Amino acid sequence: MARKRFDDMPCSIAQTLNLVGDWWTLLIIRDAFFGARRFAEFETRLGIAKNILANRLSQLVENGIMQKVDIGQTGTHYAYELTEKGRDLFPVLTALRQWGDKWVYGEGCAPMDVIERKSGRPLARMVPLGADGTPVALEDLEIRLKEKS
Amino acid sequence: MARKRFDDMPCSIAQTLNLVGDWWTLLIIRDAFFGARRFAEFETRLGIAKNILANRLSQLVENGIMQKVDIGQTGTHYAYELTEKGRDLFPVLTALRQWGDKWVYGEGCAPMDVIERKSGRPLARMVPLGADGTPVALEDLEIRLKEKS
Repeated sequence: MARKRFDDMPCSIAQTLNLVGDWWTLLIIRDAFFGARRFAEFETRLGIAKNILANRLSQLVENGIMQKVDIGQTGTHYAYELTEKGRDLFPVLTALRQWGDKWVYGEGCAPMDVIERKSGRPLARMVPLGADGTPVALEDLEIRLKEKS
Repeated sequence: MARKRFDDMPCSIAQTLNLVGDWWTLLIIRDAFFGARRFAEFETRLGIAKNILANRLSQLVENGIMQKVDIGQTGTHYAYELTEKGRDLFPVLTALRQWGDKWVYGEGCAPMDVIERKSGRPLARMVPLGADGTPVALEDLEIRLKEKS
């Protein structure tokens, strides 16, 4: 029922949550970014039940966010890899992480850093930027719903 | 059980999902950004059951993401407003929206635009930026877990 209603909402936030708005799903994607590829790796890292993991991985493959890749002997060993659509969720995970760093752990207490190798410095904090690349205050934004044609 | 496990994960993504990783919770926050303030406004916009809405709003207030503000006659009329902690979720919602615009609706078909008043142009797409403000490729990032002291 609830799922049905989200399906119907003409909103990219609702639609995205419909595809990835589940703790396990987002944490599987997180661990894929961190290098996990095999079923057993996800299972160990997440402490997730096999049936739940299998279900979420299938959904991710079905939704084109991950792909199942044959490795080793054909048809016996698989890895799960993020597709371009999946890799494009990096800003979502980064925004979630940075909010938690600030509001759950607090300044300097984050459990992990994401570092740019070149500079050795952490990523900049993600803030909404205007079309010219400068930060925008919430008060300066306006939401425009598109008219249905 | 699942909640308990997320509570224990030393990860800002897991901790943030623990606070806001629920469709309704994120959609309530979305509608607060869109101007909803009263219980009945959230109810109508979301088509959400009163008991679920009351529960989610209480949790949001308890977690310091929204605050309950007396309006009109003291103790009889309330509004729910995002706190600074709540307003700081804007990058999370923006990243979710932009992903859905691109991958669910596709170029030019997004159901809404978020426009910067000054320029009349939509927000820039959020991408991870290095400390110097230039975009960073995923391949150039390294995750460093902090050692427990």
